[in-house]
Amino acid sequence: MLRSMDTMRTLLFVSVLVLLATLGAAQPQPPLNVMPMPSVVQLGAGQLAIDRSFSIAITGFRDPTVERGVQRFVAQLSQETGMLLKNKSVESANPSLLIHLEHGRQEVQRLGEDESYELTIGESGAKLNASNPLGVLHGLQTFLQLVEPGMNGFTVPAATIKDQPRFAWRGLLIDVGRHFIPVDVLKRNLDGMAAVKMNVLHLHLSDDQGFRVETKKFPKLHEMGSDGLYYTQDEIRGLISYAYDRGIRVLPEFDTPGHSGSWFVGYPELASSPGPFKVDPEGPDSVTDPTREETYKFLDKFLGEMAKLFPDAYFHIGGDEVNGQHWDKNPKIQAFIHSHGMKNNQDLQAYFNQRLQKILAKHHKVMIGWDEILHPELPKTIVIQSWRGQESLAAAAKQGYSGLLSFGYYIDLMWPASRHYAVDPMSGAAATLSPEEKPRILGGEACMWTEWVTPEILDSRVWPRTAAIAERLWSPQATQDLNSMYARLEELSWRLDWLGLTHRTGRFQMLHRMTGTYDIAALRTLADVVEPVKDYARMDSVKGPWDFRAPLNHLIDAVSPESDAARHFSAQVEAYIQSGYKDQAAESQIRALLTTWRDNDTKLHPVLNQSLLLNEVAPLSQDLSALGVAGLHALDDLDKSEPSPESWRTEQLALVERAKTPKANLLLMVVVPVQQLIESSAGQRPKS
Amino acid sequence: MLRSMDTMRTLLFVSVLVLLATLGAAQPQPPLNVMPMPSVVQLGAGQLAIDRSFSIAITGFRDPTVERGVQRFVAQLSQETGMLLKNKSVESANPSLLIHLEHGRQEVQRLGEDESYELTIGESGAKLNASNPLGVLHGLQTFLQLVEPGMNGFTVPAATIKDQPRFAWRGLLIDVGRHFIPVDVLKRNLDGMAAVKMNVLHLHLSDDQGFRVETKKFPKLHEMGSDGLYYTQDEIRGLISYAYDRGIRVLPEFDTPGHSGSWFVGYPELASSPGPFKVDPEGPDSVTDPTREETYKFLDKFLGEMAKLFPDAYFHIGGDEVNGQHWDKNPKIQAFIHSHGMKNNQDLQAYFNQRLQKILAKHHKVMIGWDEILHPELPKTIVIQSWRGQESLAAAAKQGYSGLLSFGYYIDLMWPASRHYAVDPMSGAAATLSPEEKPRILGGEACMWTEWVTPEILDSRVWPRTAAIAERLWSPQATQDLNSMYARLEELSWRLDWLGLTHRTGRFQMLHRMTGTYDIAALRTLADVVEPVKDYARMDSVKGPWDFRAPLNHLIDAVSPESDAARHFSAQVEAYIQSGYKDQAAESQIRALLTTWRDNDTKLHPVLNQSLLLNEVAPLSQDLSALGVAGLHALDDLDKSEPSPESWRTEQLALVERAKTPKANLLLMVVVPVQQLIESSAGQRPKS
Repeated sequence: MLRSMDTMRTLLFVSVLVLLATLGAAQPQPPLNVMPMPSVVQLGAGQLAIDRSFSIAITGFRDPTVERGVQRFVAQLSQETGMLLKNKSVESANPSLLIHLEHGRQEVQRLGEDESYELTIGESGAKLNASNPLGVLHGLQTFLQLVEPGMNGFTVPAATIKDQPRFAWRGLLIDVGRHFIPVDVLKRNLDGMAAVKMNVLHLHLSDDQGFRVETKKFPKLHEMGSDGLYYTQDEIRGLISYAYDRGIRVLPEFDTPGHSGSWFVGYPELASSPGPFKVDPEGPDSVTDPTREETYKFLDKFLGEMAKLFPDAYFHIGGDEVNGQHWDKNPKIQAFIHSHGMKNNQDLQAYFNQRLQKILAKHHKVMIGWDEILHPELPKTIVIQSWRGQESLAAAAKQGYSGLLSFGYYIDLMWPASRHYAVDPMSGAAATLSPEEKPRILGGEACMWTEWVTPEILDSRVWPRTAAIAERLWSPQATQDLNSMYARLEELSWRLDWLGLTHRTGRFQMLHRMTGTYDIAALRTLADVVEPVKDYARMDSVKGPWDFRAPLNHLIDAVSPESDAARHFSAQVEAYIQSGYKDQAAESQIRALLTTWRDNDTKLHPVLNQSLLLNEVAPLSQDLSALGVAGLHALDDLDKSEPSPESWRTEQLALVERAKTPKANLLLMVVVPVQQLIESSAGQRPKS
Repeated sequence: MLRSMDTMRTLLFVSVLVLLATLGAAQPQPPLNVMPMPSVVQLGAGQLAIDRSFSIAITGFRDPTVERGVQRFVAQLSQETGMLLKNKSVESANPSLLIHLEHGRQEVQRLGEDESYELTIGESGAKLNASNPLGVLHGLQTFLQLVEPGMNGFTVPAATIKDQPRFAWRGLLIDVGRHFIPVDVLKRNLDGMAAVKMNVLHLHLSDDQGFRVETKKFPKLHEMGSDGLYYTQDEIRGLISYAYDRGIRVLPEFDTPGHSGSWFVGYPELASSPGPFKVDPEGPDSVTDPTREETYKFLDKFLGEMAKLFPDAYFHIGGDEVNGQHWDKNPKIQAFIHSHGMKNNQDLQAYFNQRLQKILAKHHKVMIGWDEILHPELPKTIVIQSWRGQESLAAAAKQGYSGLLSFGYYIDLMWPASRHYAVDPMSGAAATLSPEEKPRILGGEACMWTEWVTPEILDSRVWPRTAAIAERLWSPQATQDLNSMYARLEELSWRLDWLGLTHRTGRFQMLHRMTGTYDIAALRTLADVVEPVKDYARMDSVKGPWDFRAPLNHLIDAVSPESDAARHFSAQVEAYIQSGYKDQAAESQIRALLTTWRDNDTKLHPVLNQSLLLNEVAPLSQDLSALGVAGLHALDDLDKSEPSPESWRTEQLALVERAKTPKANLLLMVVVPVQQLIESSAGQRPKS
């Protein structure tokens, strides 16, 4: 889903302005290690001890997903405390945790089912009340996150929590078309989603590079339209049931009429241009022909089969980025446009979508598509997913359409969590909607497009940043404190480790692979302070056609989208400067890091010179060492209260500018704070 | 399998002497990153490039386990290079790797099947030849370990390798009785075993604390004799087939007449003392009654069922550590002994074993048991597994019995890899065996007893140290170079990461659990330089009865049995002293570490004071910082070429002695090198 670059760039620029505007509105939050932050939290006195006698009782309605959820909860709690706890709920009169459930849940999870819960934790026990099993599942996740070690073993702080989501649709899209993502990787990501109370896994199941679901009616779709990597129908059913147990809906997307090249390899008659087609690096270059009746017969049968396989009430047909050239060039299609009184390709796509919508309605599905499907001739029941932004979303809502925001939540763009966090579905144009229109904004979805993502890399691209988006969609709009968010995000990140997610550990294997040695310390020092280039810069840097089969085994693939080390270093430099250069603890930490960086290139150089994969980052390593030297020099001058020589500063600031240029598609994230130190050494003290 | 403490202590002492005797015999090895080291290696010139065109062809005999082995090989190679390689073998005339297989393998893997292979790697391609599929599987593991990054992407060095095992039986025992170990954990350990060419997984399936296999004939064994954690027969079959695919036999052990308390919970009539029994912390306290005919009827039916479930030709009946008190106290049993003309309980156990051996022979199994089953009345076909040592093993061999060494390979005793590595099945008394007797020493087994091991901890106790034992059993006896072993062990350790083993990463989760925070840097600094107490010291420290259900969530459970950091530090101090205090690189690294330790307690102190689990290690943290201060002081004096004051040294050496005392069952492993620095600072320079 490579959105048009120019449009996207304009949108990104607007987004930065929104970000800057929002940063001022930060509000402090209670010191509770939960993410997403619950709606209402009242901290109590004392704490509940978790020891080997910990027990759970369930009263009220008996629901099998709650039973299984409690079993997972106990297993997780056992793991996180190292104490083997009873894995069954008891009939005890005084359980440590008493769960009360009012009623059952829908057989197929519905949008807008009650997800609220109340969790009351006291010194003698905890109570978790919910109307719907979904609330119990969410409450258990909150409880788990509250467990911490203490002088009495493990404890949970006393608190009263009343919680419910702000938006009913909190999704994560995973593109399994560009790179196939195996079921076990999806499952551990579903565990991660459940931990942060997300409730929709949107699978982008087909694209030009691959068709990823077995179909019985049209087997050439998955057989010829993929490299052999696809989900069997049994696997899909297993995945849906796994998701249901965790309170998560699975939304299928089969993109059409664009992004559908993989369909044409087995069924060239569906295409608008003549075949034959094959799955090649960029995917077959054509779009669906909406003028042939056979296309709709095919779609009716195909969508009918998929509508049964995926029980969710919604069905996503993509509809984005249709390359009109193939329609322009086909005389029959042009004739069809004219004979039907259409003005242009947009009208033709609207005609196609109307037909699709009727087919889906016949199969009892609500149609969703990207911004491009919006057209007054389509019924108001459809849902618009917006990659274009709040303005597009608001325009749709004003016309009566429901919508989801994904603009600002493209996690493949390598933005920091703070930037995603600042994007609110109800901000900008959406803020001006009327009380009837506002509820049409259903929520949003983080989008993990996988042009540059393999199963090995996926976790590190999704986590932990997606938790910031999950919080934006769950917590009250006023939840804005960035320091709180980052502190909780770092805590959450290691808790996600327990679920088998590899976002923290996977990269060490990749660094080992690059160095071919167990000693990766020097490479880690560099890797910790760089980030991949942002937005579409990596795609722009490709010479020749992009190839989805290219090895993703370079340093850029192994580093985190956001450098925690650089963020912490920036904060220390900020604190040091703000203190009028008097904060000795900060200075000592800054000095230690600068020293490590100064000395790092000497250590790393021999390794870089032995490996093709690493050779390309040699200039980055040199820059880092040079910044270490310059920063230490600046600190020395600041210590002596002597202004640094101007000629030296000029030279160093030129170095800084050079170090700002991406190398090997990587950005050195400590350049700006070192620049601040150099500039400060000129002697204009902010405070004294 | 808690062997009698006093006997074991004497044996350990002998083992240290053997170790010291062996260390002198070290021989240099070729610089090849393979473990175990192959029998014959000849390095060539140049290297074979591994790129996306990498292809494999198989000629000769077609074997399905080879096909699957090649698929795993390609998947592993893809993972370790980050390049998606073709997952099918090709018919190409010029494949990158040409495998030639002579014939098939036994349907049930047999002891002594040909495991040899020849691997020839040149610049234009590699050839792997083997008679038996087992050789191909081993050769592929060797190839994988040779892959390294370089300036042309990934490469394998040109070499000619002729390889075969020294011993035919190279096992790992996992005790799943004390703590149940789930199938997925066993599977990843089977992957680890295959990587180091081990070929027997010995499952200790029942003990006082649990009976771990489903039986259809006597369901009360697993239902009442466990906490609900056992393997279904389907799971066992799956595990055996998984192991077979990797060239590994699965040997079952059902320990009797001792260590069999879990049997009596459901079947009290089997016991020598009156029931009822229950699975309690130390397990039911009784032993099997060998005097009742019903016992043998039971065993015939039970062993018949298990003999079918486990296809291996061998069957282990335990037979160790029988508590004779229960026989002494039972008048009927004493009467039986007298009426049958037996002298003592040993004779009674021999009678029991003879009966057992006949039952097993009827079910086509060869009986194995621990040292205690050795008795002249048993046929020479049985195999003795020795926890007592080479002398016991040699004595058995002289009497015509085959044997396996496990003495010296008890990996639960927390020895360093070097100490296990020095234990050779053919050393000591075994070295004096005649040419006919020597082949009776079949090999050995590493033993992972799990009194202090949960599934979470297992990998870190098994790996990487077990690879040193695997090398002892596979490679030529002259393979002894400790530096080479450790260098290759560290490389292997991160390669094992790719198999999903958690020996490196699992402990970080445990440290996080203890601190309740994402910042575990200070705790890691401490954890990196401590080791658990050795031998049975932890068990000795338990006040009251040992409880297998006790939480294993303390620092001792999270640290490695062997501290790499301490070993490296010792080597640096050694190099520094040997250089006459002139090795500046060594000194600078020593100084950096001492400084980190000096400053660490201040950082760690607040964390330790907040956690019950960590509070107990506060004195260790203080010791480490004090050693840092002392070591730095000594370095300063050495730098100034001034002898340190004697009073200071006396004081510091007293500190050193205190720091040698275990605390929280942990040993600080950097005490001795710091002591060397302090002593050196007196001014007697070894060289100058």
